[in-house]
Amino acid sequence: MEFTAELIADFLNGEVIGDKSAKVSTMCKIEQGEPGALAFLSNAKYEHYIYQTKATIVIVNKDFEPDKEIPATLIKVENAYSSFAKILELYQSMKPQKSGVSALASIAESCELGEGAYVGEFAVIGGNVRIGKNAKIYPQVYIGNHVVIGDNAVLYPGVKIYEECVLGDHVTLHAGVVIGADGFGFAPQPDGSYHKIPQIGNVVIEDWVEIGANTCVDRATMGSTIIKKGAKIDDLVMIAHNVQIGEHSVFSAQVGIAGSTKIGRNCMFGGQVGIAGHISIADGTQIASQSGVANSIKADNQTLMGAPAYDARSYQRAAIAFKSLPDVLKKISSLEKELARLKEEMNR
Amino acid sequence: MEFTAELIADFLNGEVIGDKSAKVSTMCKIEQGEPGALAFLSNAKYEHYIYQTKATIVIVNKDFEPDKEIPATLIKVENAYSSFAKILELYQSMKPQKSGVSALASIAESCELGEGAYVGEFAVIGGNVRIGKNAKIYPQVYIGNHVVIGDNAVLYPGVKIYEECVLGDHVTLHAGVVIGADGFGFAPQPDGSYHKIPQIGNVVIEDWVEIGANTCVDRATMGSTIIKKGAKIDDLVMIAHNVQIGEHSVFSAQVGIAGSTKIGRNCMFGGQVGIAGHISIADGTQIASQSGVANSIKADNQTLMGAPAYDARSYQRAAIAFKSLPDVLKKISSLEKELARLKEEMNR
Amino acid sequence: MEFTAELIADFLNGEVIGDKSAKVSTMCKIEQGEPGALAFLSNAKYEHYIYQTKATIVIVNKDFEPDKEIPATLIKVENAYSSFAKILELYQSMKPQKSGVSALASIAESCELGEGAYVGEFAVIGGNVRIGKNAKIYPQVYIGNHVVIGDNAVLYPGVKIYEECVLGDHVTLHAGVVIGADGFGFAPQPDGSYHKIPQIGNVVIEDWVEIGANTCVDRATMGSTIIKKGAKIDDLVMIAHNVQIGEHSVFSAQVGIAGSTKIGRNCMFGGQVGIAGHISIADGTQIASQSGVANSIKADNQTLMGAPAYDARSYQRAAIAFKSLPDVLKKISSLEKELARLKEEMNR
Repeated sequence: MEFTAELIADFLNGEVIGDKSAKVSTMCKIEQGEPGALAFLSNAKYEHYIYQTKATIVIVNKDFEPDKEIPATLIKVENAYSSFAKILELYQSMKPQKSGVSALASIAESCELGEGAYVGEFAVIGGNVRIGKNAKIYPQVYIGNHVVIGDNAVLYPGVKIYEECVLGDHVTLHAGVVIGADGFGFAPQPDGSYHKIPQIGNVVIEDWVEIGANTCVDRATMGSTIIKKGAKIDDLVMIAHNVQIGEHSVFSAQVGIAGSTKIGRNCMFGGQVGIAGHISIADGTQIASQSGVANSIKADNQTLMGAPAYDARSYQRAAIAFKSLPDVLKKISSLEKELARLKEEMNR
Repeated sequence: MEFTAELIADFLNGEVIGDKSAKVSTMCKIEQGEPGALAFLSNAKYEHYIYQTKATIVIVNKDFEPDKEIPATLIKVENAYSSFAKILELYQSMKPQKSGVSALASIAESCELGEGAYVGEFAVIGGNVRIGKNAKIYPQVYIGNHVVIGDNAVLYPGVKIYEECVLGDHVTLHAGVVIGADGFGFAPQPDGSYHKIPQIGNVVIEDWVEIGANTCVDRATMGSTIIKKGAKIDDLVMIAHNVQIGEHSVFSAQVGIAGSTKIGRNCMFGGQVGIAGHISIADGTQIASQSGVANSIKADNQTLMGAPAYDARSYQRAAIAFKSLPDVLKKISSLEKELARLKEEMNR
Repeated sequence: MEFTAELIADFLNGEVIGDKSAKVSTMCKIEQGEPGALAFLSNAKYEHYIYQTKATIVIVNKDFEPDKEIPATLIKVENAYSSFAKILELYQSMKPQKSGVSALASIAESCELGEGAYVGEFAVIGGNVRIGKNAKIYPQVYIGNHVVIGDNAVLYPGVKIYEECVLGDHVTLHAGVVIGADGFGFAPQPDGSYHKIPQIGNVVIEDWVEIGANTCVDRATMGSTIIKKGAKIDDLVMIAHNVQIGEHSVFSAQVGIAGSTKIGRNCMFGGQVGIAGHISIADGTQIASQSGVANSIKADNQTLMGAPAYDARSYQRAAIAFKSLPDVLKKISSLEKELARLKEEMNR
């Protein structure tokens, strides 16, 4: 797919400065510009790149006035960033779409397959499963009995969904995601061994949730582990049984949420954060990477850091002071000595 | 499946208070009660829920006397909690069981398949594999050559077992578990590159071990990585080469154990705990979430916290003191000033 | 496969002390010696094991002179360690090699399969894929369209490679690895929801890289996520979009590298280390387990520890001082009291 500057400018309702017939076939960042690629300049901080970029076309804001000559053809638009995002989506949407149902998939007769759904090779779909319209079930996916998958859901290769779980519309699960494995519930026995507690609940994932590769969401002991609308979860995250994640909350990679904890809406957790079980985290809580939270957070919109996590600014001050601890010990010991000396002097 | 209060009371050797013909078809927590569900009340802390629960039937202890009217039918038993657990297991056991060997699996001729074993679609079973009675090999599982799988083992979809590993009876591996991938062994070369050290050992997993989704247990360089009887390991855990995990030890999600370390029996590690390589951890050691252990723990039954981890209570005191560090610095500096002033005064 | 002491000594250019016809069929560590196994003694620290090992043959350095009788047959060589490594590799290389293309794999017609390549059961290989000579594609692997796989690459069962990624020669990916899933990029919207930013880049993995089980390497937003020649990455590691890993860098399990960060060459990170996004880490940086790095590291060859990480020795001193914090608080409070008393005394 190749597009001329003119065509792109038309689509964006922009103006070409330079060669209207300049052609691009891919997109790049302005600092990594390459011939045949389209880039954009929005942040003034990156302006110096535009004078040397090898990108063929650069989208810029209407009011951009170059200081010197620019090798690339420019397209001036109202908002360079959002115009570029539009082109990115157009580019993505023009990629050939997977379709059809592979003869090499194993699909139970009782499965209801929505119109336009794709099912790849060696996928296994169990009994009484319902799959929405235009859903994409990639190769080697496993879907247990009685699972429901919404319209336009995308399950990348190797996703495994245990029985009875429910996924909404526009849910995207990346390769290796496991939904609905047993929660970690064992009753300690008098002899030191453990007895498994059956996990008869399920997992419910609402619309527009996206989950990264190899992340695990365990099924509830009873009831449901719930991930609400629009939540975005990165790779290798652990969501334990009976957890509830609020709408539009965002977790970076390797976060772990222990059992029965309830996370509010619009929260944002950095990588490797750990949250204890049976607590609740208020809406809009932001937690710095690697922090640990052991108790409920009740006030909304706080920014937390540390393990145990508390107000991020206070933590940062303490963390800086931590570095001077060896020095603190020395100072205290010299204070003690001086004080002793003073006392001695006074008693003389 | 629907059951009447009468039938359940008969099974539990209990007494119905209310409507004997009340019917339930699922189970729930008393605080999340729903019509048609069976709940239980054991902990007095939850008693207030029983007066408003929508559960149709509630199992209670024999000596429970309500303060006011209860909408649900009650079943009085000796021990409400263990009776409920019994019903939970009955419910679980009545679910249809997977059985038969799929024609879509690829099974080497030299594989010995135990009586009653199930093998799902697109599973691959290598040469000279021995699979126990009633074992369940779900779809898309891979079992390498010379692997042994015990009776009643359950390998959920997508489990991968490298060659020569040995699994005992009643072992349960959840989806995406990888057993026997190469240990991480590379010899540094003079030019800064690394030379792979062949990993010719295997993994041995004893009876009644359960391992959560996407957890990895690497094969030994030589000899075996060993997980002993009854250990329970959560999702996304890393067990490195030549590690040994003692009987009935329990690890929460995202724990990592580095190479050649030996963990005692009846240990309990919280989520995201990290243990260094080539050390040993005494029996009954409990380690708080996110803690890190760098040196061997020699005394049994300690509770540890922090990184590096030490006695949990001492750590907690220090962690509280940590918060006041900026204050400590201020106090020290004002002490220094006051002392200087005093000295000056005295020398006047 | 059984080998006599004589045959092994010939191969290693060594000398047999004891029974030339002694036979071994496997290898073991000297401290875990077992009959029929070959062990080695190189480090004098382990010498006491040689007098009691059950190993049948032990490789020792030329100059080794036993203090007392040794039950095992010895083979004296120039360098016991490297001779043993040689045998280990020989042993490994003699294992039967996978070969052939399974009729149960699904391979697009437009796929170019190199000479001697192996493709296992239920593997899926997309359109316009190029697979190198002698590459091994194990069962249940997924390879998306337009992927390139180098010569002698090994993709263990269940590896998933999204479209357009590029793998060099001698790359080894263990079971469950996911290469090229979407980077975690979402633009916040005024209503608190998130809008997905298409991830149109790819992943490039250079020659001789090895990646452990269930590790994830996400595709770039634009351009490439790059893992350079000879890097070794353990299990359950997270490499985010647009990250670059330098040559011969080594990451232990559960490390996480956030987006757009650049790691130098010959770095070494312990388990569970976390590195923030959009920073760069100098060549030869060593980072202790569980440490967190929030800012760029500019000087080469430093050893760092802590979160936030800084000079490891300084950190260790501070960590020791941390333990005495409750004591520090007490001392400060008693200093304050004594000082107050002194002042009072002086003012009297």
